[in-house]
Amino acid sequence: MATVPGLELLSEHACFGGVQRYYQHASSVIGLPMRFSVFLPPQAQQHAVPAVMYLAGLTCNEETFMAKAGAQRVAAELGLALIAPDTSPRGAGVPGEAESWDFGVGAGFYLDATQAPWAQHYRMESYLLKEFLPLVGEHLPIDVNQLGLFGHSMGGHGALTLALRHPTRFKSLSAFAPICAPTQCPWGHKAFAGYLGEDRTAWAAHDASALMGQRSAPLLAQGILVDQGLADKFLEVQLHPHLFEAACAKAGQPLMLRRHAGYDHGYYFISTFMENHLRHHAQGLGLAA
Amino acid sequence: MATVPGLELLSEHACFGGVQRYYQHASSVIGLPMRFSVFLPPQAQQHAVPAVMYLAGLTCNEETFMAKAGAQRVAAELGLALIAPDTSPRGAGVPGEAESWDFGVGAGFYLDATQAPWAQHYRMESYLLKEFLPLVGEHLPIDVNQLGLFGHSMGGHGALTLALRHPTRFKSLSAFAPICAPTQCPWGHKAFAGYLGEDRTAWAAHDASALMGQRSAPLLAQGILVDQGLADKFLEVQLHPHLFEAACAKAGQPLMLRRHAGYDHGYYFISTFMENHLRHHAQGLGLAA
Repeated sequence: MATVPGLELLSEHACFGGVQRYYQHASSVIGLPMRFSVFLPPQAQQHAVPAVMYLAGLTCNEETFMAKAGAQRVAAELGLALIAPDTSPRGAGVPGEAESWDFGVGAGFYLDATQAPWAQHYRMESYLLKEFLPLVGEHLPIDVNQLGLFGHSMGGHGALTLALRHPTRFKSLSAFAPICAPTQCPWGHKAFAGYLGEDRTAWAAHDASALMGQRSAPLLAQGILVDQGLADKFLEVQLHPHLFEAACAKAGQPLMLRRHAGYDHGYYFISTFMENHLRHHAQGLGLAA
Repeated sequence: MATVPGLELLSEHACFGGVQRYYQHASSVIGLPMRFSVFLPPQAQQHAVPAVMYLAGLTCNEETFMAKAGAQRVAAELGLALIAPDTSPRGAGVPGEAESWDFGVGAGFYLDATQAPWAQHYRMESYLLKEFLPLVGEHLPIDVNQLGLFGHSMGGHGALTLALRHPTRFKSLSAFAPICAPTQCPWGHKAFAGYLGEDRTAWAAHDASALMGQRSAPLLAQGILVDQGLADKFLEVQLHPHLFEAACAKAGQPLMLRRHAGYDHGYYFISTFMENHLRHHAQGLGLAA
């Protein structure tokens, strides 16, 4: 196993003929050590492979997806790498950062905070786009120009907004139970007020439904795949998929929004539909799906 | 969802068209509340289905397998229920029970302790055979006369020894990285000395290699499937699969012992080979595999 300067291999596990790795590195954007996980399929032993980046939800970390989503089997078949960053800085020492499960540690919302005391370390958008993905592309057998993006809940918000804010960066997009309109739900109000300030004019730039609603053309001709459980206890108050659906219709963006009776917000739901998402990304990335 | 007397439903999650449940009940054998998990495949909505019971390893609980092993997809396809008990009593209050990760809480070794102060509550063998399986059969759409058994590490020891000690109870058997000869390894020495006493004559009755070595005929004509990673850090000192292999050869017991280069002791290893195990059990239970 290769150890490269600045990238510390924490653990490595054979998995479905490929390899599951956990890394830590000193992030200059965040100003703290950051951890991430990578699954390399067997094909990565021969050549650089496309990847899908997964953004996890509130309270999760870089391990949650790799341990619980059951994604490696299909990724190994398709020749797709999986990469998963953490959900926030750790150890920033901001007063109160660990007091709530929906703000601060484990709840970075994949944006750059503009408000003190959060703005110094809570810079997940710049971290992912300017540091993390280039690092992965430089040191691992992954073609970071062939990238899909997906996520769950807060990470679904992250996936949709980052794809809309960086419209040429990601070639395929999907989400599980995303927070579709954070400017209109309690989780979003709390996070945006804290990270972006009480002036709500700055908020729309990080709201997937608002961003999509401003477009006059589709973002991705392939369409966006979204799965939502109808027994999800957060559906009505926090998630608002109907607002994203309306925004996509207005923008002419194809959307496959699938509503599933009986399914809740957790990883038993996510694992059930994981294969569909990976095949969607493989198709968008030009692999045999 | 049905609530039955004495069986408390803690949570329920749709999963692969079936349902993942967590239960608690007051165990009379253990003398404490015990938790367990069940995955019911979609077929269980129509008729009672066969099941495989999974016994987890040291430090695990009734959730580990269901969250990390990726078993539900194949179980749903095959029409196989999955059931997983906890790994020990919880809350027995035995002095020192939580001081070690390899003895006491999370480390019941699937046997009935004979030594004070463990003998009062640490009675996992009687619990599973006399209380847990009858309870499952009575209250859930599971045919507990059509049962397979498997497990990991300490739970692999549990699977092999319980199948050998109750030779008509389980119709199929497999294990991931089992402790094959606990009378000859540090984990087994510590557990057996504590639970069974320093007189080693009682130990062989809970040692899979010793039990198999005493047989003059196979236990299961189908054969026993065992997967073992060769990068498993516990292989040399704790697991001793070669001793079980020799005992099976002596008894004429077919054994599919597969040694996998690069794989370690964890759930990335287990999930890789889970589908093979479930199809092995389905075949042993007469399902289309």
